[in-house]
Amino acid sequence: MPEFRQNLATKEWVILAAGRAKRPNDFAKDQTPRPSLPPYKNDCPFCRGNESLTAEPVYVLRRNGDWQVRVVPNKFAALQPTLDTARTLVGSFLSVAGFGIAEVIIEHPLHNQTLATMAVDDVAALLRTYRQRQTAISRDDKVNLVTIFRNHGARAGTSLEHPHSQIIATPIVPPHVRYPWEQAVMYYDQHGSCVYCDLMREEIRQQVRIIIETDHFVAFCPFAARSPYETRIYPKRHMASFISVRDDELTDMAAVLQTVLARLYHCVGNPDYNYIIRSAAIGDDDTRHLHWYMVIIPKISTPAGFEMGSGIYINSLAPEDAALCLRETKIVP
Amino acid sequence: MPEFRQNLATKEWVILAAGRAKRPNDFAKDQTPRPSLPPYKNDCPFCRGNESLTAEPVYVLRRNGDWQVRVVPNKFAALQPTLDTARTLVGSFLSVAGFGIAEVIIEHPLHNQTLATMAVDDVAALLRTYRQRQTAISRDDKVNLVTIFRNHGARAGTSLEHPHSQIIATPIVPPHVRYPWEQAVMYYDQHGSCVYCDLMREEIRQQVRIIIETDHFVAFCPFAARSPYETRIYPKRHMASFISVRDDELTDMAAVLQTVLARLYHCVGNPDYNYIIRSAAIGDDDTRHLHWYMVIIPKISTPAGFEMGSGIYINSLAPEDAALCLRETKIVP
Repeated sequence: MPEFRQNLATKEWVILAAGRAKRPNDFAKDQTPRPSLPPYKNDCPFCRGNESLTAEPVYVLRRNGDWQVRVVPNKFAALQPTLDTARTLVGSFLSVAGFGIAEVIIEHPLHNQTLATMAVDDVAALLRTYRQRQTAISRDDKVNLVTIFRNHGARAGTSLEHPHSQIIATPIVPPHVRYPWEQAVMYYDQHGSCVYCDLMREEIRQQVRIIIETDHFVAFCPFAARSPYETRIYPKRHMASFISVRDDELTDMAAVLQTVLARLYHCVGNPDYNYIIRSAAIGDDDTRHLHWYMVIIPKISTPAGFEMGSGIYINSLAPEDAALCLRETKIVP
Repeated sequence: MPEFRQNLATKEWVILAAGRAKRPNDFAKDQTPRPSLPPYKNDCPFCRGNESLTAEPVYVLRRNGDWQVRVVPNKFAALQPTLDTARTLVGSFLSVAGFGIAEVIIEHPLHNQTLATMAVDDVAALLRTYRQRQTAISRDDKVNLVTIFRNHGARAGTSLEHPHSQIIATPIVPPHVRYPWEQAVMYYDQHGSCVYCDLMREEIRQQVRIIIETDHFVAFCPFAARSPYETRIYPKRHMASFISVRDDELTDMAAVLQTVLARLYHCVGNPDYNYIIRSAAIGDDDTRHLHWYMVIIPKISTPAGFEMGSGIYINSLAPEDAALCLRETKIVP
């Protein structure tokens, strides 16, 4: 029987219509097998040996005389760091100059790596780089929001094979970010607690949607998952911003992230996906009502007119079944 | 130079990064040519002659002894009209039984028709059917929101070739719909006018993004368009709900919609698209601060992690250029 489910934090609704669903393992069959990649490509600007094809890096993490992670300005940036943030009226419409910082994080020297198959140490290096960049970029007075994300595969919006993430910093905090913030404030004032902490505790209490739980993190398919295999990784300690995460927590998170992505890879057939770190706007780092987390969204279903019109997503796989499938997936090295 | 642009009504932002853009006509080259379709297919449940393959129609519009438009319950409905709307707590998470009404509107007896190539009379018949169904469904006390939409092509979320639209009625009005409503109320209280009326008047005054204007409607690519060729069709008369539209207005709208879709077809190479009629929730039909409209979203760009994380869409084609291209497109019959 179909049901509506509400996201406790954002108050958004989904329709869980699992009756129409394929079985969890059927989703894997829908994935187009990817060609296997070489470790090096002549014309790939992100490959070791081709460093001259990118702009000067803004940050490099090194290991044994080689680079491990390399951060460069995005050559095809939609925003420009040299612009200002002047607001202008075009008639009665508001426009702001396109200031922004856009960086590409090259995750590995080798072309044929991906987080799902990478060593946990490499994933930890990537997360440390995220934190370093978010911290550094946040010092720019014109920046109000830093978004860290990864697009994996064409359906997730990238055609670049070499493993990479992106950071975009904007002077704008949009309603899309403010609305959940307002809900979180109202919840805090009503309940005296962070809604994300409460949501996580409730997921842990119910257990059925948990994929993996460690000392510092929990990964789960949320009660109101918008699409099959949507996964969230929450830090257990209350923190509004990713810049507050500690070294020991990052090491723990690397293992959790690597495990989740490896299980998705094996359970769902290396699907295209996006992941995003949702973190408080600059200056709200210490707020008591927000909580940073990572959301992983495999690109399995296609949002259509109904989703775009109503904002209600139809999910054909119960998150309980998705989590079970991911829990039981054995990684064959 | 890139810029942020704000939607006057919703306060959402986009990044216009037209510097990275192809020229307007380049978008057409990216479209995969569609196979040409036969007028009839044996196994298509929507084809004239195969009426027994669907459930009993809930509504039929007839012409010359044949059906012109046929509305049937959606066989693969995500929601069920037989359920109730009881709210239940699952721990601290909210769930609502999956009551809803889902109908498919078969737009034409022939398999190989599409709105872009259909006669205006057929488009008018479709719009009259939309109004009839929205009016009828709105009488159900359990319904709070009716969403009418069309998915054209696989990227828009349909694999069904036969021309069809859909209606989904829900007991839920989600935040996605409430937030713009809140913004509209605040605007009304501040300015004493409907923000959508004002937005439309400003677009008409600026002229550069107008595609076509008639007595009763105006079609334009909005100032803060989220993607290339995003188009809106607004009724000039203030109306919160589509059920208030008059017959003469519908005839006018049919010509506008058909023209816009035909120009998209020829200018952008028959792209996949979604369109949605955004209309007030049931009971708000006469409100002074909302305004129904249709939004047409060609599926040309792929929202990626940044869009999902921030809600800020990056648009690589200025709506001024898109509108110019659509204005200048000659329809070769």
